[in-house]
Amino acid sequence: MFTRYTPELMDDLKHRWSRLQQAVRLSGADALLVGSNVNLCYLSGRIFMGFVYLPAEGAPWFFVRRPCGLTGANVAEIRKPEQIPEILRAAGVTLPGKFLLEGDDLTFSDYTRYATLFAGAAAANGSALVRQCRTVKTPYEIQVMKKTGSRHATVVSQFASVYEPGMTDQAWSIEMFRLMLKAGSLGLFRIAGSSMEGFMGTVLAGDNGGAASPYDFALGGAGLHPSLPVGQSGTVLKDGMAVMVDIAGNFYGYLTDCTRTFAIGHLAPKACDAHQLSIDIQHAVAAAGVPGTRCEDLYTLALKMADEAGLADGFMGLAQKAKFIGHGTGLVINEQPVLGARSKDILEAGMCIALEPKFVIPGTGAVGVEDTFLVTPSGMVNLTPCAPALVIL
Amino acid sequence: MFTRYTPELMDDLKHRWSRLQQAVRLSGADALLVGSNVNLCYLSGRIFMGFVYLPAEGAPWFFVRRPCGLTGANVAEIRKPEQIPEILRAAGVTLPGKFLLEGDDLTFSDYTRYATLFAGAAAANGSALVRQCRTVKTPYEIQVMKKTGSRHATVVSQFASVYEPGMTDQAWSIEMFRLMLKAGSLGLFRIAGSSMEGFMGTVLAGDNGGAASPYDFALGGAGLHPSLPVGQSGTVLKDGMAVMVDIAGNFYGYLTDCTRTFAIGHLAPKACDAHQLSIDIQHAVAAAGVPGTRCEDLYTLALKMADEAGLADGFMGLAQKAKFIGHGTGLVINEQPVLGARSKDILEAGMCIALEPKFVIPGTGAVGVEDTFLVTPSGMVNLTPCAPALVIL
Repeated sequence: MFTRYTPELMDDLKHRWSRLQQAVRLSGADALLVGSNVNLCYLSGRIFMGFVYLPAEGAPWFFVRRPCGLTGANVAEIRKPEQIPEILRAAGVTLPGKFLLEGDDLTFSDYTRYATLFAGAAAANGSALVRQCRTVKTPYEIQVMKKTGSRHATVVSQFASVYEPGMTDQAWSIEMFRLMLKAGSLGLFRIAGSSMEGFMGTVLAGDNGGAASPYDFALGGAGLHPSLPVGQSGTVLKDGMAVMVDIAGNFYGYLTDCTRTFAIGHLAPKACDAHQLSIDIQHAVAAAGVPGTRCEDLYTLALKMADEAGLADGFMGLAQKAKFIGHGTGLVINEQPVLGARSKDILEAGMCIALEPKFVIPGTGAVGVEDTFLVTPSGMVNLTPCAPALVIL
Repeated sequence: MFTRYTPELMDDLKHRWSRLQQAVRLSGADALLVGSNVNLCYLSGRIFMGFVYLPAEGAPWFFVRRPCGLTGANVAEIRKPEQIPEILRAAGVTLPGKFLLEGDDLTFSDYTRYATLFAGAAAANGSALVRQCRTVKTPYEIQVMKKTGSRHATVVSQFASVYEPGMTDQAWSIEMFRLMLKAGSLGLFRIAGSSMEGFMGTVLAGDNGGAASPYDFALGGAGLHPSLPVGQSGTVLKDGMAVMVDIAGNFYGYLTDCTRTFAIGHLAPKACDAHQLSIDIQHAVAAAGVPGTRCEDLYTLALKMADEAGLADGFMGLAQKAKFIGHGTGLVINEQPVLGARSKDILEAGMCIALEPKFVIPGTGAVGVEDTFLVTPSGMVNLTPCAPALVIL
């Protein structure tokens, strides 16, 4: 393993390998070969260009194409993946008869190339298995999520300080992005799925809160340009507008999600009610979210509360509605599970879930809150605690 | 086609379709089905979630999953790709016997799903074909690249104004990112290849200029965290250090590349010489870069100039050297062609190429320049013109 890791991280990595190895054995495979950035980071504690080879039993191997100079036990420099079998064989490792590759993460070209690396071996898609393992955070990951959430919430509580009357959503977003970076955010918004992309987060002012986007976020926004149609649209912030700020935290490679809503002057009473209802729904879902709960039931609970309040119309969007009120987060902003209709997922202790019941009120904009929660035996604990009320600017 | 496009963009899209259709016919396929964000943007002028179906002859079709509300001729809303054949059939379109998919861009799972959409049809990898078409920019794209390069260069010339003595590379980078965003940059750093990622750009101070990174950039930098090991490392800027600033411009969906080097006080003579040599190499390559030139020859020319000056040691890195001195740029920062060893590419008029001969001088840091050039019949024209000399801070 790469040198200079703390004992805590080393122990945690062993925990991750062991849990994933159990899943590999259950799948009937002899090994997992990982090549995507996010899963490499999960299994090695850092990004490198190369592969982790995790046998169903025994120690993992780290095959590094770049950077040069990484050393440690079971670390081998390679120029190309075709060198892997010979290195393993020379080390006395039995080559797999069946192995897993990341079919949902690797390109078709890469997958088909890697699938023939081990002569005579069968390759199968192991992406879901790794994704599933990553849903329950390890002790080290939970500490990182807590630290990230805490720093994230601190920055969110400073957002109002960089607002100036007459700004556009874009101008304000730039000052908030700067605060995040000054607090140590790495900036990069890692997201799973080749159709998904974004830059740090979104600021949705007024009716732009209801604009439909190509991306599968809770809310969209038209964006500034057709090449990135999401988020702030250059809207001048005016009296009576709600402004929803949803900027991700990424301080140590793990992402937390936190949304707060700002009011330019006073909002229509319906928008204020909807905002309070969002807080109430989030509380109710968090309280109900004990291990063993069906994710679909939490979505149904939220939907029922919106419906009973007569606010179902604008719940999770207008013309285009998100079909979920929460999602896992961690190394990417959109981990499993999804708290949505038809989800088969069950909550487990150690999951980190962003809860984001949101409403769009025509003429006012998007209102609501989002926080990242840790699932514990007694319910969900907020990792991004900061005042949830509408902030009047 | 989506409504509300200017006649100029519509004409240009027709030009793109027609050029790609010719390549599809030459490949022996009956159609190309595109699903990756970047190629959707290329063929439709915007990002959406869905597909462009480009038959070898006739008008393309646009199948949209998200956002809702996109309308126009040959635009169909779909929930899933399996609806595509029936919609085409109903419109009287002959279904393909052989079709192309983006094997280098789509995940294995998506590719294998789409490969069976048309019963009995054979699927083949068309990524290289689209990538090749994209190397030569269309008239509209050239106008966008010119506008982007011009705005980019204007912001680069403001970088020194936000420097303050005693800053870290990171603190200064945040102020420069802010300038870029305030000038209208969309921020997003689009890059091809699943192993590649980054945030807006890099600021390499002192010996961090020679740090090896997992990513295949010209230079690396250690980065702030193992989860994103590239770029600024938190180095305090001190007398005698070179600071290389390489932040991408993305104002209208197309990216230009431009690097300038700043000197904190006075640099070692060798570093100043290497910087001037970088300018000289860039000029020589740009002058030699007429249509028909082999990209490998331009790399060899650069290497020879570095060698003859006795500066080959630090050329394009120290322990880990980039094997190229330039690359195409456009919708992503790393388009084809690559000006590197063993490149088989030939320059054509209309290509946009970033030329970045760079040196790392131990004890001082990275020096050199990068600009984005348009290949014209009389050589390469700089699209990011701003003073190339070392800026002494």
